[in-house]
Amino acid sequence: MNEYIIGLDYGSASARGVLLDIATGQEVASHVHDYRHGTLTKSLPDGTPLPRSWALQVADDYLAAARDILGRIGNGKRVRSIGLGFTASSPLPCRADGTPLDRIAPHAPHAYVKLWKHGAAQPQAERISAMGGPWLDNFNGKVSGEWLMAKAAQIAEEAPDIWAQTDRFIEGGDWLVWQLTGVQARGLGFAAYKAQFQDGRGYPDVGIPGMAARLTDPLPVGSPAGDLTDEWLADAGIIGPCTVAVAVIDSHVVLPAVGAASAGTFVAALGTSAGAMMIDDQPPRLPKGIEGVAFNGALRDLWCYEAGQASFGDTLAWFVEAFPNGSTPAESFANYEAEARQIPAGANRLLALDWWNGNRVPHARSDLSGMILGLNMQTTSVDVYRALIEALCYGMRLMHDLFADGGFEIGQVIMTSGLASRNALLIQTMADVLGREIIVPEIANATAVGAAIHGAVASAIVSDYADGAARFGARSSRKVTPDMTAHATYDQLFQSYRALVADPVLQGTMRKLREI
Amino acid sequence: MNEYIIGLDYGSASARGVLLDIATGQEVASHVHDYRHGTLTKSLPDGTPLPRSWALQVADDYLAAARDILGRIGNGKRVRSIGLGFTASSPLPCRADGTPLDRIAPHAPHAYVKLWKHGAAQPQAERISAMGGPWLDNFNGKVSGEWLMAKAAQIAEEAPDIWAQTDRFIEGGDWLVWQLTGVQARGLGFAAYKAQFQDGRGYPDVGIPGMAARLTDPLPVGSPAGDLTDEWLADAGIIGPCTVAVAVIDSHVVLPAVGAASAGTFVAALGTSAGAMMIDDQPPRLPKGIEGVAFNGALRDLWCYEAGQASFGDTLAWFVEAFPNGSTPAESFANYEAEARQIPAGANRLLALDWWNGNRVPHARSDLSGMILGLNMQTTSVDVYRALIEALCYGMRLMHDLFADGGFEIGQVIMTSGLASRNALLIQTMADVLGREIIVPEIANATAVGAAIHGAVASAIVSDYADGAARFGARSSRKVTPDMTAHATYDQLFQSYRALVADPVLQGTMRKLREI
Repeated sequence: MNEYIIGLDYGSASARGVLLDIATGQEVASHVHDYRHGTLTKSLPDGTPLPRSWALQVADDYLAAARDILGRIGNGKRVRSIGLGFTASSPLPCRADGTPLDRIAPHAPHAYVKLWKHGAAQPQAERISAMGGPWLDNFNGKVSGEWLMAKAAQIAEEAPDIWAQTDRFIEGGDWLVWQLTGVQARGLGFAAYKAQFQDGRGYPDVGIPGMAARLTDPLPVGSPAGDLTDEWLADAGIIGPCTVAVAVIDSHVVLPAVGAASAGTFVAALGTSAGAMMIDDQPPRLPKGIEGVAFNGALRDLWCYEAGQASFGDTLAWFVEAFPNGSTPAESFANYEAEARQIPAGANRLLALDWWNGNRVPHARSDLSGMILGLNMQTTSVDVYRALIEALCYGMRLMHDLFADGGFEIGQVIMTSGLASRNALLIQTMADVLGREIIVPEIANATAVGAAIHGAVASAIVSDYADGAARFGARSSRKVTPDMTAHATYDQLFQSYRALVADPVLQGTMRKLREI
Repeated sequence: MNEYIIGLDYGSASARGVLLDIATGQEVASHVHDYRHGTLTKSLPDGTPLPRSWALQVADDYLAAARDILGRIGNGKRVRSIGLGFTASSPLPCRADGTPLDRIAPHAPHAYVKLWKHGAAQPQAERISAMGGPWLDNFNGKVSGEWLMAKAAQIAEEAPDIWAQTDRFIEGGDWLVWQLTGVQARGLGFAAYKAQFQDGRGYPDVGIPGMAARLTDPLPVGSPAGDLTDEWLADAGIIGPCTVAVAVIDSHVVLPAVGAASAGTFVAALGTSAGAMMIDDQPPRLPKGIEGVAFNGALRDLWCYEAGQASFGDTLAWFVEAFPNGSTPAESFANYEAEARQIPAGANRLLALDWWNGNRVPHARSDLSGMILGLNMQTTSVDVYRALIEALCYGMRLMHDLFADGGFEIGQVIMTSGLASRNALLIQTMADVLGREIIVPEIANATAVGAAIHGAVASAIVSDYADGAARFGARSSRKVTPDMTAHATYDQLFQSYRALVADPVLQGTMRKLREI
């Protein structure tokens, strides 16, 4: 009988599952399930209104997604392992038996999952950062309002009754693994990047009452959490036994699927926003401006540095929406792309700052904003479109160079996502701006495949991530070679970009505009 | 028999004439004549190609325009005077008898009129400025590449054969008056603002061989140059005698038509670009950043300070062209205007620098460019349109405040032009940004009417400019009152605008973009 592995990718709006044949390494089935309640930003399901910048999800939606996906792709199959990627930090409060509080107290906003982009815990984050301490060394001295401790602090302060009923405060991905296996086994990725857990030192004490009791120590990624319970096996029609791996942050879980499983690899996932990761095997040496680093949190026995751009593909989508160049967004994209390709490097005489959603690297400030400079009477809308693409590439180079200047040997640059595969101008400009070859792996459902490889590692179907990557990851890739003439021009422009990034007058002005 | 006066307004693309009835002060006829050759920027009429940033005109086109206009509106009329406004500095080389060199040497680019916006004499301007001297005191130490001495130096250097044949180097307006009257009588406005002539000190010696012999001393504005010759009277069918006044710079000549004939008046003409003038009766005290000042060059016995914005209405036209919001530019304008009016002050959270054609005040640099800051995912095209309007108003306030902070008592603010009359959002925003009442005179063909008033002064039909303004100028005006709540918001935004204007990083980046 054929044997399979499953990978689950829990994103912001939907979950996706893939079934891979262990013998061939090929994907044989996939399914996508949209969360029933999506993301709650305006009100709870009962109509209770939510304040500005809240973003919640319903824990039971994750179970419904698992039931649907496992039944569709696993029914009648011998599935040896399941791996799971999940958005982060998206924690929820639950009872000691795993019952999510939003099931018990559906009228209480603080009982729900706080999705990663829930932005209302910023004051708590700032207070926590101000406490300082060596536990912040790997995070350039700053926690984000999107992270777990800030969200816990917000509940403890604003809804002490909910906090009192909270036996465990746990990432959605860890909670889902718990539901699948009956075992509370947290992933080290979530704990390290989103709750500043460190081996030997544990979680930091940031003064939240009773916090320590609500956490449990995590396991390295690629660890087995437990087996899929008999109830789940029966419900989905899966033939076990089936090992479930600890959950992994969705932006990291993709790595083995795109062949990024070794030190010296710079990987960027070009989505709505862009995540950038540097994989390393040396003691940590966090460049100033890079967001954070952890060991065993993304790949086994490796350090993975995390950085990113708060807006990426959505900046181009914004432009096409605000300034259409065709009767549909797709037509506008195609027209802009075709016309922008005709413009030589530097000929638009424009320079933009890609901060449409604020800046992550190097300033880590959400109150910064986008800028376009160099506008004149000859400037066309296509010039501006191209300037936005160029700015996205300068933002990426800024991260790349922070690593390179910080002494990292960058052996290969991998860029992944639909945008990387489809947008030829973007990826060519990226190569030209970086002045180096870019590898674009050719693989569908990369994140879910990456999750499946984590399951394969946890169940010892593969010997390690490199083996998993070879057997289940991308089989081919496109290599994008830089035009070194264009690179010489972009090199000059990038120096100007850096000057703008560092300009205190610009930052001050952007922040004042937000305050008015 | 009724008696009339004529005003002629020689612009960049066409000349316009008005016939005013002396008894009633009313306009009774007008006519517009487009120059046959327009502006030569790519090639001469014979096909000889022109280098980048050249802009030439054909002297005989001006005569053809005068013949057409005077014949159309003057035929059979007793015309007592003609006044003339002309673009500046638009000089041409001619023989001692007035024959323009482009008639003799039509294949030589340097034989033609160099229109004000001819930009190829910038290196000469920089060399002249570097010489320094007290003759630059009234011009903040700097001559523009658009001015007469720089253009003369360019011919002397690049085409010594043409320079050798040049007996007189003369502004187009002065040359036209010479053709109309047979008398070479230059206007003090051109000489003072564009060739740095000063009473008592004469023209500066900037090292151009034989320059002094090619110039003649000017007469104050409102002086009679001579009478219209018998040939012109016969040709046009005008009943003389008819006094022709010395020519006046077109941006200044409008002043008496809009009631701006006394000290303490700040006047702005909101056209494609914007001119701003401050009328004063005190010894000169040029604020740093303001372009220049002269006495008797715009109005009699008064100082007129000159400033402006290199792009104004054309920035809005650019936006509507680059980012249409309707099927025609007019429809786009109307849609943007209607939607932008709904946005409260500061709500677009944007700030722009209005330097689409470079900056005149305070930096006097043509290599600066436009900028938009504060862009985010919520920004709409209408937000950007409104930000451009606001930036134009901040640029105007910058000039207004340089005068106010420099100790000038600004008794009234007058704004004129079609844009000022038609664009309700622009003029209301202007009042809100300045925080003061703005007077918008209601008058057609204001520049040509102003020119006619200069003729009336020169022929003593009126006793002075105030009398001329009262009899022939605008009969009514609209008063635009500021919304002081919006003003309070704009006050904060203007502080940020000033910070951006002064930011050396921005200026350096803009200049680098030009050099690539």
